[in-house]
Amino acid sequence: MNEEQLRTLLEQVRSGAINVDSAVARVRHMPFEDLGFAKVDHHRELRHGMPEVILAKGKTPDQVVAIAGRLLEVSQNVLITRADAPMAEQIARNFAGAEYFPLSGAVRFWRDKTLRGKGKIAVVCAGTSDIPVAEEAQITAEVMGNEVESIHDVGVAGIHRLIESSARLAAARVVVVCAGMEGALPSAVGGLVSCPVIAVPTSVGYGASFNGLAALLGMLNSCASNVTVVNIDNGFGAGYVASLINRL
Amino acid sequence: MNEEQLRTLLEQVRSGAINVDSAVARVRHMPFEDLGFAKVDHHRELRHGMPEVILAKGKTPDQVVAIAGRLLEVSQNVLITRADAPMAEQIARNFAGAEYFPLSGAVRFWRDKTLRGKGKIAVVCAGTSDIPVAEEAQITAEVMGNEVESIHDVGVAGIHRLIESSARLAAARVVVVCAGMEGALPSAVGGLVSCPVIAVPTSVGYGASFNGLAALLGMLNSCASNVTVVNIDNGFGAGYVASLINRL
Amino acid sequence: MNEEQLRTLLEQVRSGAINVDSAVARVRHMPFEDLGFAKVDHHRELRHGMPEVILAKGKTPDQVVAIAGRLLEVSQNVLITRADAPMAEQIARNFAGAEYFPLSGAVRFWRDKTLRGKGKIAVVCAGTSDIPVAEEAQITAEVMGNEVESIHDVGVAGIHRLIESSARLAAARVVVVCAGMEGALPSAVGGLVSCPVIAVPTSVGYGASFNGLAALLGMLNSCASNVTVVNIDNGFGAGYVASLINRL
Amino acid sequence: MNEEQLRTLLEQVRSGAINVDSAVARVRHMPFEDLGFAKVDHHRELRHGMPEVILAKGKTPDQVVAIAGRLLEVSQNVLITRADAPMAEQIARNFAGAEYFPLSGAVRFWRDKTLRGKGKIAVVCAGTSDIPVAEEAQITAEVMGNEVESIHDVGVAGIHRLIESSARLAAARVVVVCAGMEGALPSAVGGLVSCPVIAVPTSVGYGASFNGLAALLGMLNSCASNVTVVNIDNGFGAGYVASLINRL
Amino acid sequence: MNEEQLRTLLEQVRSGAINVDSAVARVRHMPFEDLGFAKVDHHRELRHGMPEVILAKGKTPDQVVAIAGRLLEVSQNVLITRADAPMAEQIARNFAGAEYFPLSGAVRFWRDKTLRGKGKIAVVCAGTSDIPVAEEAQITAEVMGNEVESIHDVGVAGIHRLIESSARLAAARVVVVCAGMEGALPSAVGGLVSCPVIAVPTSVGYGASFNGLAALLGMLNSCASNVTVVNIDNGFGAGYVASLINRL
Amino acid sequence: MNEEQLRTLLEQVRSGAINVDSAVARVRHMPFEDLGFAKVDHHRELRHGMPEVILAKGKTPDQVVAIAGRLLEVSQNVLITRADAPMAEQIARNFAGAEYFPLSGAVRFWRDKTLRGKGKIAVVCAGTSDIPVAEEAQITAEVMGNEVESIHDVGVAGIHRLIESSARLAAARVVVVCAGMEGALPSAVGGLVSCPVIAVPTSVGYGASFNGLAALLGMLNSCASNVTVVNIDNGFGAGYVASLINRL
Amino acid sequence: MNEEQLRTLLEQVRSGAINVDSAVARVRHMPFEDLGFAKVDHHRELRHGMPEVILAKGKTPDQVVAIAGRLLEVSQNVLITRADAPMAEQIARNFAGAEYFPLSGAVRFWRDKTLRGKGKIAVVCAGTSDIPVAEEAQITAEVMGNEVESIHDVGVAGIHRLIESSARLAAARVVVVCAGMEGALPSAVGGLVSCPVIAVPTSVGYGASFNGLAALLGMLNSCASNVTVVNIDNGFGAGYVASLINRL
Amino acid sequence: MNEEQLRTLLEQVRSGAINVDSAVARVRHMPFEDLGFAKVDHHRELRHGMPEVILAKGKTPDQVVAIAGRLLEVSQNVLITRADAPMAEQIARNFAGAEYFPLSGAVRFWRDKTLRGKGKIAVVCAGTSDIPVAEEAQITAEVMGNEVESIHDVGVAGIHRLIESSARLAAARVVVVCAGMEGALPSAVGGLVSCPVIAVPTSVGYGASFNGLAALLGMLNSCASNVTVVNIDNGFGAGYVASLINRL
Repeated sequence: MNEEQLRTLLEQVRSGAINVDSAVARVRHMPFEDLGFAKVDHHRELRHGMPEVILAKGKTPDQVVAIAGRLLEVSQNVLITRADAPMAEQIARNFAGAEYFPLSGAVRFWRDKTLRGKGKIAVVCAGTSDIPVAEEAQITAEVMGNEVESIHDVGVAGIHRLIESSARLAAARVVVVCAGMEGALPSAVGGLVSCPVIAVPTSVGYGASFNGLAALLGMLNSCASNVTVVNIDNGFGAGYVASLINRL
Repeated sequence: MNEEQLRTLLEQVRSGAINVDSAVARVRHMPFEDLGFAKVDHHRELRHGMPEVILAKGKTPDQVVAIAGRLLEVSQNVLITRADAPMAEQIARNFAGAEYFPLSGAVRFWRDKTLRGKGKIAVVCAGTSDIPVAEEAQITAEVMGNEVESIHDVGVAGIHRLIESSARLAAARVVVVCAGMEGALPSAVGGLVSCPVIAVPTSVGYGASFNGLAALLGMLNSCASNVTVVNIDNGFGAGYVASLINRL
Repeated sequence: MNEEQLRTLLEQVRSGAINVDSAVARVRHMPFEDLGFAKVDHHRELRHGMPEVILAKGKTPDQVVAIAGRLLEVSQNVLITRADAPMAEQIARNFAGAEYFPLSGAVRFWRDKTLRGKGKIAVVCAGTSDIPVAEEAQITAEVMGNEVESIHDVGVAGIHRLIESSARLAAARVVVVCAGMEGALPSAVGGLVSCPVIAVPTSVGYGASFNGLAALLGMLNSCASNVTVVNIDNGFGAGYVASLINRL
Repeated sequence: MNEEQLRTLLEQVRSGAINVDSAVARVRHMPFEDLGFAKVDHHRELRHGMPEVILAKGKTPDQVVAIAGRLLEVSQNVLITRADAPMAEQIARNFAGAEYFPLSGAVRFWRDKTLRGKGKIAVVCAGTSDIPVAEEAQITAEVMGNEVESIHDVGVAGIHRLIESSARLAAARVVVVCAGMEGALPSAVGGLVSCPVIAVPTSVGYGASFNGLAALLGMLNSCASNVTVVNIDNGFGAGYVASLINRL
Repeated sequence: MNEEQLRTLLEQVRSGAINVDSAVARVRHMPFEDLGFAKVDHHRELRHGMPEVILAKGKTPDQVVAIAGRLLEVSQNVLITRADAPMAEQIARNFAGAEYFPLSGAVRFWRDKTLRGKGKIAVVCAGTSDIPVAEEAQITAEVMGNEVESIHDVGVAGIHRLIESSARLAAARVVVVCAGMEGALPSAVGGLVSCPVIAVPTSVGYGASFNGLAALLGMLNSCASNVTVVNIDNGFGAGYVASLINRL
Repeated sequence: MNEEQLRTLLEQVRSGAINVDSAVARVRHMPFEDLGFAKVDHHRELRHGMPEVILAKGKTPDQVVAIAGRLLEVSQNVLITRADAPMAEQIARNFAGAEYFPLSGAVRFWRDKTLRGKGKIAVVCAGTSDIPVAEEAQITAEVMGNEVESIHDVGVAGIHRLIESSARLAAARVVVVCAGMEGALPSAVGGLVSCPVIAVPTSVGYGASFNGLAALLGMLNSCASNVTVVNIDNGFGAGYVASLINRL
Repeated sequence: MNEEQLRTLLEQVRSGAINVDSAVARVRHMPFEDLGFAKVDHHRELRHGMPEVILAKGKTPDQVVAIAGRLLEVSQNVLITRADAPMAEQIARNFAGAEYFPLSGAVRFWRDKTLRGKGKIAVVCAGTSDIPVAEEAQITAEVMGNEVESIHDVGVAGIHRLIESSARLAAARVVVVCAGMEGALPSAVGGLVSCPVIAVPTSVGYGASFNGLAALLGMLNSCASNVTVVNIDNGFGAGYVASLINRL
Repeated sequence: MNEEQLRTLLEQVRSGAINVDSAVARVRHMPFEDLGFAKVDHHRELRHGMPEVILAKGKTPDQVVAIAGRLLEVSQNVLITRADAPMAEQIARNFAGAEYFPLSGAVRFWRDKTLRGKGKIAVVCAGTSDIPVAEEAQITAEVMGNEVESIHDVGVAGIHRLIESSARLAAARVVVVCAGMEGALPSAVGGLVSCPVIAVPTSVGYGASFNGLAALLGMLNSCASNVTVVNIDNGFGAGYVASLINRL
């Protein structure tokens, strides 16, 4: 149930089309319904104004299909992250309209393509190997109703490539920056734009990158004041917060 | 030089009041000027639309005073963070109008109190010991032109205290949450609001808090999707990004 | 040999049915018997009043079957944890009455279902992915003679789901809480109940969860005073201690 | 307000001595009252049946005195932990009846000495240097209404000293074990008793003890199943949970 | 070439049976010979009085076979550690007399079984899962010419099992103790014996054992003064040093 | 485009053979060209005077082939690191002249074998297991135009093997030292030579080597002043910097 | 009570000079006597054949004086480690014959100078800053009855200095090696001698030495097989084990 | 004794001015002389061609003065690093010509100012707080005979400041880059220059900078291939290696 559906319901209450008790029942008992292994939270779209998202990692395919089934009944757009190919196939066999993105493992149901963001979100990545994470951010931002400007392979060791992208960066209302290894790109981007920058450390690298720890620490210590950070490889979280900001 | 001053300058160019070369000179050669030990960056206010900030930690009092002197000539509002009492006194002896906040160590010159944010910023802290960090966030958000709603001592072990604050939280356009120890508060707040939440881990705690590491990891792994994170004790960074978001 | 069997033996000594030397021999030489690769500790049930448990991880199937064989001769209930499917099958081929739980890898022989706990144990988990660990805690508590109340998917980012479970939580004499990612749930539960809370960090998460380290540190730093912690993914340990407490 | 006072109030409601609205007001509006920097939670004694505790570390002396003042009005027993000598003196100047324990930094107001625990709590420590932490556990357990059996200096490298204490250990309903360095004592104690053991790693040691990390990891990995763990040096938490268990 | 062979050579020099230059050539040019990918160090048996050892991990089967071939020409006893089954088979196809130990992955050529140690070496392990590491220590000590007393499954949580082994421990001249999880056994053993104890942390455990780190830190912080430590799972190193000590 | 080609172009500008605009276009628009997933940086050879290198790890085979194709058009020598066997085969099917080195996973196109270094580069490794990393350093140095002196298996526990290599070490203009385990070799080499030493920690080892962390920390703390360090297993980086130094 | 005194006692029992009960009482009740805060373990000298040692760190001066007083009554030699200057003075005021070593903080009572070791112990250190730790090892070994050969400032970056000491090293029966920074010296020494080497990492260094962690990891990963390791800065432990070995 | 003095000596040998034995004695017995607590290594200047350096940290003032005294007799230039003010004063009282640099704690004797480097060394730092480390690098490079170009306060968040310095950077033969916090500057500089870059992480920062660990990891993972790294705050090491490279 989204805000519009709620408003309709309340209008029906006001006009007497349904009585108060029924309305209370629909609203109050709806917040979540218990599938035994998961409480499906239908109120979330109301509270957050965002489609529902399922993190597939750690769940069985049957669990993901069951949760997705309930969500697709009440939500136009549903995003499933971190699904491997067999799980994606099982989802596609059960529900029409699934897009699968093998690099990031995302499955997207994007039935309502209304633009809700007020500007563009730029999604930047440092190297080719960071693209899966950037893709997750982009897919998320799109399904949340945003236009995305995607800028790849502009790491700080080739600073002129970044500077050539300045204009496109400056046109964004919020920037997501994905980088592994030393994670230096958000600081450089942060110095070039005046909007919020959401930094996503990626697990790209080897040796003392410690699976993204080096990039994470680098970003948390950024000398650019407009940078905040999400978890390693958390493209979804960055795309989600960027969407919230772009709706303001 | 802020955006308005730049616009005035360019109007003068258009009207012929000053010639192009002089204008170019003023804009181009102004970005930063070299004090030897620091490059003072006057363009920053233009690029970011925000007052200048000096991190006092690691600088000598003389360096801080010298930098502050140059900034106060060109900027209405200046914020100095992490100054101890002797440094704050030396600043106060040199420049009028300094407010000193001993808990957080901030020194603030707040001469232009125009509100620039479009809504309220809530600054929440988990316990009494987190107040110094929350104070830094609040001071920063205020000097950047925001109205701040401050909510103290609502840690998750007394969840009813947090829920009693729901209405005030819901009225905010962006929320800053400061918490040490297990750092669980941003997740709980994130579930209660639909706006962006900026989490600040604090170094409050002992033993396995490892000076804020536990809180930091907790916040990076938040199950609430609307949470991003800044460095341990970085109230300034949180207040700064909250200000950027609130201006959108 | 459990306490009842010991009491019977001692009565026989008192009544002269067996002489002291034989009794001493049976008690003294029984504490453990050497299988070469493992000392089977039959006294443990006596000392601790609890069935024997085998941690299968790190042992060969043949070793597990040999130890289980000896234990099943002297103990009604036996629990084997962390067995993979082939090992579970080999156990089932050798001994009747094995239940296998594939999510947690537990194999349970539950022949004496006497209730020994004085109240209910609540086993709570934050998300669907934490269920395997919660299942291990539940299976353990049951085989130790307890009634278990199982509450799933009540993570702190949807705090209303947790609060709806307050009554069921309040009815428990001891609560086990399993959570991965930021591990914040024990603090919230700890604030809602007045009984002991045993927190189990799970390895659920990615990136900076560092395989459960983030949740572990969060729980150790809980601001709720009634929380103690066991090892990452140690559902067994939590169920075991909860059983000890519930017997008091 | 404790459970007895609440019961009295409700009896008055039933008998008509006070009306429902007044009763609701007293109960509902009492949960916490706002001192600005701290929300004093008077309901806690009701919910948890335990006296209030103030962690002094990270608070100013004035804040501690203010909070203590409000708590002493409504609670017989109050415990303040981690206070240094000057703070303890300031508390003593303000309120009569304070006991100060310099090793652990605890200040205790113990006006109601009713025994509430059903058996003894044993507090064990490995070496002389662990006594401050053991003392905090003992003081906490006493103020919560328990008889404490204190056993010092029985580290595992002199295992016969521990075994000589077996009878005293076996007489306890719950055992608290404080140990630094390798933190091995809880495993050995856990094997000797059949009741719950609460392990407290201490920061005693040097070099690779990493301020208690070695002991913490050791205790989390205990091969004794009846061991749970609290934060490094958290004698208070151990004493608190032991008290909860001993009341069952 | 061992010390005896060297002595013989020098006698021949003295008696004139061979001239000085030839002797110098044999001794001087022999220390190591270059296989390109490895310098085979024939002098080592002379300098250390111990058979040669090859760590197979990280080498290709061909490299191991080539090095083993050269060593078997000059040394009676050769030990190869950390070989998987295919590598062990390839070695067995090339050289007669190989014993393979699949638990620890050791391949042993034990052609000279002279006892060189002056007493017994006890090899103790805490649990069944630690046996592979204990086996590596035992095999090493044996091939170095020692009698080994092997004591299994005497972890500290069943301290009476350890104490029953006191006499066998006291009969040893040096003790090797292998333990995973909390790594407490060396401290307890160290308190029972007066000879040197060599502690081997094993990677047995899960969660916060961090692949043996918990056991390693525990052993380094042992409160027993007669304990020294080798690397995680380094049964070979422990057996080697125990052999050196037992020869004294 | 290398420096010579640039010089030719500029001569053509001076002589009027091509006009300035065309020249500017060729130089300015050439720095990188966008393949969508990667910006191929043709200017790099100009700026750095070094062939282009592709890190295959984290890229798909199709991406590597596409990037390699563009680079081979403009550069004589191309190096691809960290390619597994299937990727190497796909490269070989697409382009003639590929050498594959399975130990290190390098694919090399070495068409211009001009010597550019002014002396020899010594590449030293501590043990046979470190050879793959040393090989990557050697291959890199060779394709950059250097003569390489390779010295294997001279770890510090056999210090006489290292000292026998002194003369060859002393003949080098720069030394690369690869070592895992305790990483002590660079300090010993650093004391024997007076030229710069580039230390490469390798992930060779087990247990507390923590995949190269022990060696990395050892090298960063070297007591030899002429040592600098690159990332764990980064043979390429060491070979690259050694080449830069050897060209001076 | 040492072994001789015990033997005398038992002879008296055999001859009837004292009766069995008295003898039992003296032996049985003597193992430790309770000072309240510490159990003084008089049996230790019997079990271990070594003087008693007090770790002063973490104890109050009064506690140390009380323990020392009891030990000096029954033991000829007593060693107190990690005492600061005021504590050392208080000890000296109470007991005659104290030697104080300010670098290492040791206080030694060395009244029985009988040599008990069968050879020399070499104590080696890498740099001048490691001397305090080496001194603790030397003092310990001496008070345990050993002749010590002290070799300073022979770090691996000046390998010729180490090699010049080869003869003195080779004359030792056991070697203690203290080194901070990269901790490489034990590997080099281990390759030069054929006896056991006890490595002591020191906290000497800065930055990525992490207070001795780098040296500790280096030593645990030593490629020399005759090396075992004790805790960071634990010169006492190394001297103690070296003494045990030297008595064999 | 430097190379020239050695050459002179050997010429005297050739001409018969001194006999071979005396020459051998002077060269052979000179390498180091034993002060008891330190072996002064006079050969080092010969082997490395560089002045002697004393790391004062961890040494007593008397030790530093004694070592400095011997070195000043044989070497024109001597550098003492990490001396606090009292130690610097004591040095100045003993030897003429000391320069003291309080920010970095360096004491320099710079009597031979011959330029030995073939080009300029650029020393770059990210922020004002990094200047002490940069100063140590500069002082070292100067006393080793180099001209230094010093560039301050050009952190990546103000990338235009760095780009304005491109020409000065390009003129250097080797660049030292000092940066704390996220440590991103070496990557950006590495992309702008084609010479070797030596990165020095500084301990500047707070919270998750972990005293320079974040910067260290960032630099080790640099995506610029021409970057090598030294220890945290090791300005001396960077200046030393830069000097070696600049002499080539």
